[in-house]
Amino acid sequence: MRIYLLSVYPKIFESIFDDGIFKKAKKEHLAEFEFVNIRDFTTDKHKTVDDSVYGGGPGMLLKPEPIYKALDYIKSKDKDVLSVILTPEGTLFNQQKAKEYAKKESIAFICGRYEGFDERVKLLADEKISIGQFIISRGELAASIIVDAIVRLLPGVLGNKESLKEESFENDFLEYPQYTRPATFRGLKVPEVLLSGNHAMIEKWRKENTLKVEREVCDG
Amino acid sequence: MRIYLLSVYPKIFESIFDDGIFKKAKKEHLAEFEFVNIRDFTTDKHKTVDDSVYGGGPGMLLKPEPIYKALDYIKSKDKDVLSVILTPEGTLFNQQKAKEYAKKESIAFICGRYEGFDERVKLLADEKISIGQFIISRGELAASIIVDAIVRLLPGVLGNKESLKEESFENDFLEYPQYTRPATFRGLKVPEVLLSGNHAMIEKWRKENTLKVEREVCDG
Repeated sequence: MRIYLLSVYPKIFESIFDDGIFKKAKKEHLAEFEFVNIRDFTTDKHKTVDDSVYGGGPGMLLKPEPIYKALDYIKSKDKDVLSVILTPEGTLFNQQKAKEYAKKESIAFICGRYEGFDERVKLLADEKISIGQFIISRGELAASIIVDAIVRLLPGVLGNKESLKEESFENDFLEYPQYTRPATFRGLKVPEVLLSGNHAMIEKWRKENTLKVEREVCDG
Repeated sequence: MRIYLLSVYPKIFESIFDDGIFKKAKKEHLAEFEFVNIRDFTTDKHKTVDDSVYGGGPGMLLKPEPIYKALDYIKSKDKDVLSVILTPEGTLFNQQKAKEYAKKESIAFICGRYEGFDERVKLLADEKISIGQFIISRGELAASIIVDAIVRLLPGVLGNKESLKEESFENDFLEYPQYTRPATFRGLKVPEVLLSGNHAMIEKWRKENTLKVEREVCDG
């Protein structure tokens, strides 16, 4: 899978992609990442990526041209790339969407900063997506989370053990309490049954203590 | 405001915190950030932070002791710190929560990786929070988003222009289409009214074209 991240400040990705599953995915060629600097597609001396708002209003907007050109560049080598723009009014990202994205050949995430995009940039993308009901200053962080959720689903990225676990999360966010050593810590004991070695009893206890996180999936 | 981030791999934060509003907040002493490496609070030679699951099951869990000790260390210098653990069954983070957190003197975010925490770690924290209905491998990314949402609300972090904008987002996610130069780009034109200079008309157009993103806030 090929993943492109379009940003006006791709340096933010450095330590995120030199870590954990991203590092592994790169090293083992399970995914390819390319950071595309929107600033490289400006034509003026100052490499201007934003400008003031027509009709008045606070702040600046990301201009359409450099982003269009950056996506043109990506499409010139990966013509069927799915382009996704991170924006608060987009569809709320969830696990279902992560699975859908994980099946794609290539995706490009367009990340905004501060005040957002010229409306015509939004027309450019195949999909609009939102990470949640809150305001952040850097779309790169939202994109990194989405890419993390995708990459962990790619074959070979998680070890077998973790993959098994994934299946139990398939449809719901099932959670039963889990414990590791020591059996007693600061007076807090691991439930006896989990130390019993009786697998039928353990299974029963886990079923009874499963918290089904059944938040309704809210879609924009 | 003082923000602590507890992690087994704090190196991931480097490029995130050397960027944008985090860089500004640090430089101008509007917020202090401290990365606390959970591994520094282990006592064995191998600095073990995780262990297998009691009663069987895939993967590993973060052990309670090092995390308890790391939080003890923070409380030794900041006794009223609010501790928040990132976990899928937590309350869903939203803008209201960002505002609540932005009023605190100090917060510590406990970030997990892969398989999650020993249940007793969850008892340790004052609050459990979730970033959304999806699974990610690194709690550090979720914490970074939450900290971004908080820091941009701190006085002085955003310029006046951006702050003004914030007010229009106060209660709803109000969005009207915004445009910047050029007036025509690849055949896509900025609506005439926005170029008219007629502020009453512009105001009217914006009201009529406001998309209210009224997703129900789903709380776990």
